[in-house]
Amino acid sequence: MDLDAFAAEVARGMYDNDPASQALGMELVEVRRGYARLTMRVREDMANGHAICHGGHIFTLADSAFAFACNWTNRVTVALACHITFTAPARVGDLLVAEARELHRAGRTGTYDVTVRRENGTLVAVFRGNSYTTRGKVVETLPFADELTTAPQPRS
Amino acid sequence: MDLDAFAAEVARGMYDNDPASQALGMELVEVRRGYARLTMRVREDMANGHAICHGGHIFTLADSAFAFACNWTNRVTVALACHITFTAPARVGDLLVAEARELHRAGRTGTYDVTVRRENGTLVAVFRGNSYTTRGKVVETLPFADELTTAPQPRS
Amino acid sequence: MDLDAFAAEVARGMYDNDPASQALGMELVEVRRGYARLTMRVREDMANGHAICHGGHIFTLADSAFAFACNWTNRVTVALACHITFTAPARVGDLLVAEARELHRAGRTGTYDVTVRRENGTLVAVFRGNSYTTRGKVVETLPFADELTTAPQPRS
Amino acid sequence: MDLDAFAAEVARGMYDNDPASQALGMELVEVRRGYARLTMRVREDMANGHAICHGGHIFTLADSAFAFACNWTNRVTVALACHITFTAPARVGDLLVAEARELHRAGRTGTYDVTVRRENGTLVAVFRGNSYTTRGKVVETLPFADELTTAPQPRS
Repeated sequence: MDLDAFAAEVARGMYDNDPASQALGMELVEVRRGYARLTMRVREDMANGHAICHGGHIFTLADSAFAFACNWTNRVTVALACHITFTAPARVGDLLVAEARELHRAGRTGTYDVTVRRENGTLVAVFRGNSYTTRGKVVETLPFADELTTAPQPRS
Repeated sequence: MDLDAFAAEVARGMYDNDPASQALGMELVEVRRGYARLTMRVREDMANGHAICHGGHIFTLADSAFAFACNWTNRVTVALACHITFTAPARVGDLLVAEARELHRAGRTGTYDVTVRRENGTLVAVFRGNSYTTRGKVVETLPFADELTTAPQPRS
Repeated sequence: MDLDAFAAEVARGMYDNDPASQALGMELVEVRRGYARLTMRVREDMANGHAICHGGHIFTLADSAFAFACNWTNRVTVALACHITFTAPARVGDLLVAEARELHRAGRTGTYDVTVRRENGTLVAVFRGNSYTTRGKVVETLPFADELTTAPQPRS
Repeated sequence: MDLDAFAAEVARGMYDNDPASQALGMELVEVRRGYARLTMRVREDMANGHAICHGGHIFTLADSAFAFACNWTNRVTVALACHITFTAPARVGDLLVAEARELHRAGRTGTYDVTVRRENGTLVAVFRGNSYTTRGKVVETLPFADELTTAPQPRS
């Protein structure tokens, strides 16, 4: 099985089981190994009185992108710590696009960078997450990625 | 006017104008100079499939507490960057308590620490925020705190 | 054996084997379980041209304090990630005092807060470190702390 | 004047006035607008007993690169807060290469990313710095960059 397709399948299983990301209207646009792209439309109930999106909702979008990017092996991987810098406001009605990429992964720990942008490309926030991989399984009906790659592969 | 009472009044004005914090069910328990305590009950739509609160919602609560603690002078003060470490999960039904305290404030920048705990005291997250004070006013109908303190005070 | 005395003994062994902390003139003032206090005098070769201590040397002092506080069990514990906020300058000749405290420790990960102050108490920096415990031993001639506590203790 | 050449000139003036970076053997390889590349050889007095470079010295190299990248306009720009993640050890004798890039700059605040690598490309650390621009001048004998760009330019 193609590992990028596998990563996308894990993400779909995670998303189906994630009321928080669904309730905020997040959509999975693309997931592959160590990478995720999500969108979220800023709603009125995500804003403060000046129609500026609450920083917490921007963080939540980035954190979800981080989660989809770091759980792709189907081993439950949690956020230990995250850092976010806010660079521009987002407004009600804006479609935000979060892109998460793996910077580093070794043993049980990893580091991921996420950018959040408005549709026009304006950088809204940069996020960096430190992850920790546990022994649990994300999607029970799927194997771990390392079982796939070490298993003998059928010839085409 | 007592400055702690003034801080609480600013916070009340901010809260009334903050649909995001209201929509998440946050309640202002106490605000005084450089300090805020808020609560939020973890709802089902804040959780992932394992009934564990999404880290983003924990961040959002901490970020709101930070905002109430750093805007008390009625000068609009924004988050430049925030760091959060997750130490224990929160579950659907838990009442989370966030407490924000000012560590440092000089010129236009400041630093605030927030803890998020379950009602039983378990530490769920620690958050540190770096703030930047702009020239805007939080609550239009109130003065700036420094105007209060430099104004002649009525004798008792 | 008293665990605080054990922690101090581990720290002494670490320090004897740490040319970097020695070369910067750091001194171990106090170490106990999850706590360390160190000092460092700002030298001319730690400063920039305005006789202000380089932020890197302030970080290094804080990072050493973090290391002494998180390795006390004699299990090699490394820094995964650290965050520092600079709140006031330090000048050549200042004696800096770093105090590290454990905020949280569970399984293989932990979180520590460090403050760096001038002798007069002025806060120079606040530091937060996320640690990860490996299987190695800090001081070969000492046991692990958990071996001490689970071993039968001699009667006094 | 070419702004990249101007940035390099500011950096040279800063470096000549920076005993800390010099004492650690840092060398300025390249500076242009919002970018700096520096090297540092890990010496025995930068290491702990296992011949592993102290994380503080890796931070100091990254912090210097950040400083050269964010002061290029000749306006004194200081670190408000920095975050570093350690991804691999550096050993005595390693030549470390730090590269700093501007992610964002608006008004008085900015955000910079720094990578630290071994000569073979191995990622040793990732660093993110939040900066604040003051009213001071870095190199007294040079103008501010915005004076250059708003002044009428000679025709070629």
